[in-house]
Amino acid sequence: MDNTIMQQVDEQLAIIRRGVAEIVPEEELKQKLYRSIKEKKPLRAKLGLDPTAPDIHLGHTVVLNKLRQFQDLGHEVHLIIGDATGRIGDPSGKSETRKQLSEEEIKLNAATYQEQIFKVLDPQKTIVHFNSKWLMDMNLEAVLRLAGKYTVARMLERDDFDNRYKEGLPIGVHEFLYPLMQGYDSVVLEADIELGGTDQKFNLLVGRHLLREYGYEPQIALMMPILEGLDGVQKMSKSLGNYIGVNDDAYEMFGKTMSISDKLISRYFELLTRIPMNQIEATQAKMDQGAINPRDAKISLAKELITMYHDAEAAEKAEARFKLVYSQGDIPQDIPEVQIPAQEVWLPKFLQENNMVSSSSDGRRMLQQGAVRVDGEKFEEENLQIKDGIVVQVGKRKFIRIRIS
Amino acid sequence: MDNTIMQQVDEQLAIIRRGVAEIVPEEELKQKLYRSIKEKKPLRAKLGLDPTAPDIHLGHTVVLNKLRQFQDLGHEVHLIIGDATGRIGDPSGKSETRKQLSEEEIKLNAATYQEQIFKVLDPQKTIVHFNSKWLMDMNLEAVLRLAGKYTVARMLERDDFDNRYKEGLPIGVHEFLYPLMQGYDSVVLEADIELGGTDQKFNLLVGRHLLREYGYEPQIALMMPILEGLDGVQKMSKSLGNYIGVNDDAYEMFGKTMSISDKLISRYFELLTRIPMNQIEATQAKMDQGAINPRDAKISLAKELITMYHDAEAAEKAEARFKLVYSQGDIPQDIPEVQIPAQEVWLPKFLQENNMVSSSSDGRRMLQQGAVRVDGEKFEEENLQIKDGIVVQVGKRKFIRIRIS
Repeated sequence: MDNTIMQQVDEQLAIIRRGVAEIVPEEELKQKLYRSIKEKKPLRAKLGLDPTAPDIHLGHTVVLNKLRQFQDLGHEVHLIIGDATGRIGDPSGKSETRKQLSEEEIKLNAATYQEQIFKVLDPQKTIVHFNSKWLMDMNLEAVLRLAGKYTVARMLERDDFDNRYKEGLPIGVHEFLYPLMQGYDSVVLEADIELGGTDQKFNLLVGRHLLREYGYEPQIALMMPILEGLDGVQKMSKSLGNYIGVNDDAYEMFGKTMSISDKLISRYFELLTRIPMNQIEATQAKMDQGAINPRDAKISLAKELITMYHDAEAAEKAEARFKLVYSQGDIPQDIPEVQIPAQEVWLPKFLQENNMVSSSSDGRRMLQQGAVRVDGEKFEEENLQIKDGIVVQVGKRKFIRIRIS
Repeated sequence: MDNTIMQQVDEQLAIIRRGVAEIVPEEELKQKLYRSIKEKKPLRAKLGLDPTAPDIHLGHTVVLNKLRQFQDLGHEVHLIIGDATGRIGDPSGKSETRKQLSEEEIKLNAATYQEQIFKVLDPQKTIVHFNSKWLMDMNLEAVLRLAGKYTVARMLERDDFDNRYKEGLPIGVHEFLYPLMQGYDSVVLEADIELGGTDQKFNLLVGRHLLREYGYEPQIALMMPILEGLDGVQKMSKSLGNYIGVNDDAYEMFGKTMSISDKLISRYFELLTRIPMNQIEATQAKMDQGAINPRDAKISLAKELITMYHDAEAAEKAEARFKLVYSQGDIPQDIPEVQIPAQEVWLPKFLQENNMVSSSSDGRRMLQQGAVRVDGEKFEEENLQIKDGIVVQVGKRKFIRIRIS
């Protein structure tokens, strides 16, 4: 063992370990890093992507940020667009989530995907693969050989299979082939390490098993935690509406970030930004001592995120607008939201429908009395052009935030 | 419903029902027969064959005889040589029974198979298929579509899977694909009915399910009982040694048939010959009354079988030889057997090795005293040319039958 190399290994590991939920097994990762440094040969880090849902939010970037760290350490990132399964769809026809996509749709989705992903990853150090390239040509013989590498009992150990089996819910035989196909991607790539959320642990370990079965060095499985959404309880997800999209505009990002609970601040810094850990820990300590207002820490977080996904200027502007709105009207942060399309609404009716006034004539009266504010400013027109994020207020205590649906 | 056709349906059903263990469902078979007669369109009866074990014995002919009855009723027989699985072999490499065969070996096995099968089936009404024709070209997409037609839970209901799963013995994921491949053969053929032993029920029902899933009329599953071997207890099988091979020579067939227990006589007649049922029942009744000696019924059975697999002349000769041997020497039927290669043996040593004399000098003495008989006739030479089925006797009570190994 060369001590200089060992030191470099430890330095890389310290960065790699940041925010990680689990590395299986860490000892082997050390060996791979050692060899990589010694032979000046980058490791091949793999991430599989599902092209059926191309819109990504900050929850997805947790893993992407980790990949970016690998790139910054000189390693190679291999993105697998899982277009084969997307093109095939779910043959059982029972799952809404796996509907068959045309080649055209998949190409479009993949392009959207990459555009968003390259806001985090370095395109120069990223190799994109479509797994249809090797999967669509597999014949029955190759499929049987692959399927023979894994047992039914081990497949049924996967949590969702286990639950469905015990509850008598159907599992199609083809569903046992998907984790094997994903694992086979690792074999074709000869991946050194595969990344994913903790919910992907089973699949990552299938890949590890298959590499060994096909005579290669097994990959390391590196699992990142699942990011909590704005509510701080459930995982960030589009369907739950508790997400910040990487394509959200700057002001939306700002507002959403300001709405997270204080206890999420450090976690978001750790998993979503490149701010050094010691700086994050220092801020947390100061918050704990009351030396920093959490609101100011959130402003820093919001600006950091906007700088990453837009630019520094957009971050400044969003902060200015936010401060203007919230200082004038003293709008509390925790107010109800309503989703409506971008359109012009007749306010008396809108206020009544959202239980802010008792009737539309009551609403008209409030407007005439100057009791209605929009984004903290007095508003006396009857018609309002809806924009995302604006706050409508009646009197001193009734607020509603409008989201474009 | 046309009464004349209904009558023909009932006539056909009476023949089809002979010896059958189960028809699933019989009502649909009736409908298929009705349409077949009305439209003068034969039914397509399917049988799948495993080309890894080409030697067939009378246990296998139970199903072949049933197929022959279908042919005699004007229907089509489709034999599927399962060469795809044979060529692929077992990818897990764990099963001795599924070792990979070369294309050459499979062709040779298939030829041997057909030669034996056409001793029962009418080659003119038999269509032979190799399932590699459609299976080897299946790509991943087609395999996933097929696998999506069946659930894991239903697959685990198959007895052998269920047992292995419960006992913690491994089941490869690929093993779930084999029943589906076999069932897919039925889809390609658009089979009306598939035949098999009762042990094939699960697989036949998978085929039935798949035909429906792919939009065809489901096949009928017709199960024949598993034939007991010569011992009357275990199923006839080569590995248990309790079988009559269709390629056994006439005298061997005769001797083996004479060794079955009396209670098997009618069953063998029913499942293995074309003797009408009323005649079989009449013989059984007479045996029950003591009007026919079971030994004579067995002689009839033996001659019938030899006539089917050799010819009438061979049957007569075998009977004559058997009677000669067993009447002259009063050789009991139930004597031990020894398997040795066809060669010349030195009798004094042979007798000692088989515990018929205490030493080879004792053996030589017995020969000199005229106490040794071969096939009932006194034998005084020291060297004996081994032939299959000959009986060696020392004194009055020590017998051994020699089988060529």
